[in-house]
Amino acid sequence: MPDRHTSVSSVRVLAFDTFGTVADWHTGVSCALAQVFPELEASQVARDWRRTYAPILAEVEAGRRPWTLLDDLHGETLDRLLREKYAVSPTPEQIDAAVRSWHRLPGWPDASEGLRRLKAKYTICALSNGNVALLTAMAKASDFPWDFIGGSDLWRRYKPAAEVYLGLARLMQVEPHEVMMVATHATDLAAARSVGLQTAYVSRPDEWGPEAKLEEPDPDDAFAVRGIDELADRLGC
Amino acid sequence: MPDRHTSVSSVRVLAFDTFGTVADWHTGVSCALAQVFPELEASQVARDWRRTYAPILAEVEAGRRPWTLLDDLHGETLDRLLREKYAVSPTPEQIDAAVRSWHRLPGWPDASEGLRRLKAKYTICALSNGNVALLTAMAKASDFPWDFIGGSDLWRRYKPAAEVYLGLARLMQVEPHEVMMVATHATDLAAARSVGLQTAYVSRPDEWGPEAKLEEPDPDDAFAVRGIDELADRLGC
Repeated sequence: MPDRHTSVSSVRVLAFDTFGTVADWHTGVSCALAQVFPELEASQVARDWRRTYAPILAEVEAGRRPWTLLDDLHGETLDRLLREKYAVSPTPEQIDAAVRSWHRLPGWPDASEGLRRLKAKYTICALSNGNVALLTAMAKASDFPWDFIGGSDLWRRYKPAAEVYLGLARLMQVEPHEVMMVATHATDLAAARSVGLQTAYVSRPDEWGPEAKLEEPDPDDAFAVRGIDELADRLGC
Repeated sequence: MPDRHTSVSSVRVLAFDTFGTVADWHTGVSCALAQVFPELEASQVARDWRRTYAPILAEVEAGRRPWTLLDDLHGETLDRLLREKYAVSPTPEQIDAAVRSWHRLPGWPDASEGLRRLKAKYTICALSNGNVALLTAMAKASDFPWDFIGGSDLWRRYKPAAEVYLGLARLMQVEPHEVMMVATHATDLAAARSVGLQTAYVSRPDEWGPEAKLEEPDPDDAFAVRGIDELADRLGC
């Protein structure tokens, strides 16, 4: 195992997962759903919707469906969920309004200022399964000062595919170990480590709103922190 | 011809050429060359070097050489220029130092603040033949507050290839006419217009240092301005 202190000092690029790690999808999506579908229990629909996310991305990655933008997958999964579980037949406009809520998710309270502190010392990148337009809109709406936005449509691959992590390192012209992946999801971090990135775990106990989140940092994470401000503290920013 | 007023009002994304339009390559590169090769006339070498740029990019685009990052093309063209015209045999370290100067070119005096004003109303993107790492480093060094960085390695194509302009529109999820290309080079703007983008010409009479620049705006440019601050004025930012 590499010396922790030495390896962290080699980091030049910080790559951030966005949904859940930087942005609070449960609050943002629940608020939009409550407006679009006032008859439904918005938090429950938001969480049900989010549960369809990993499986449909995995279908794309397994080659069982062609490359599809996250916006379009979001529309399809919400439409199906509403029809099958909630007996609601949404209009295209309702679906579109809900899908667009992912473009302007609010940041966690520590996100914007924490990123700004880290940006003074590191190159900070979004590295997300969101598409570039979604992530760009969210950054403008919620003041995320990214140096570069790594959206899934740059590679037409979804995390945890190795190509996404390595693709960012290549664009940044650095070695994998010079990139630290920051996320609140163990699968994302494990995949990043498996191709040589360093990792930091951010606990976000409220990611799922009222629902408890069962996840722990891994001993191989260089840091386990409670927010991006604490990551900035730990990295001396 | 489309109504000018109506079309400009449809613009949502501003795409900026960087070398010459936003950043002053002549000053930045001349200063670096003067340090690395004190025996040479730095401004002349910088201009000679820059003249090798369009031809070697055209070679890549014509398929006569495989895709190569701009950094690597820069290194190759400078090495050849120094050997053939200046009878200098540079070390790899000297070449690298000179190539790196393109990563931290200074902005024109109006660039940083002008971009900041435009960013409040538009999505502002670099759309350059520079690679992503180069453009990201330059943005940090010279305070260019890009929303998104469109480097040539995203598409592995060089402007004026249509795929670059259309590729940015696709990533931004907008129609070509919703993008305005901003540049000080008529060939860049003509290529952008030919695939449906709107265009704005920025005059940069000092782009070539002591050498006069012979270029005029085209009547089909929506704007011809003297700086990014004036573009912000014209766009009501």
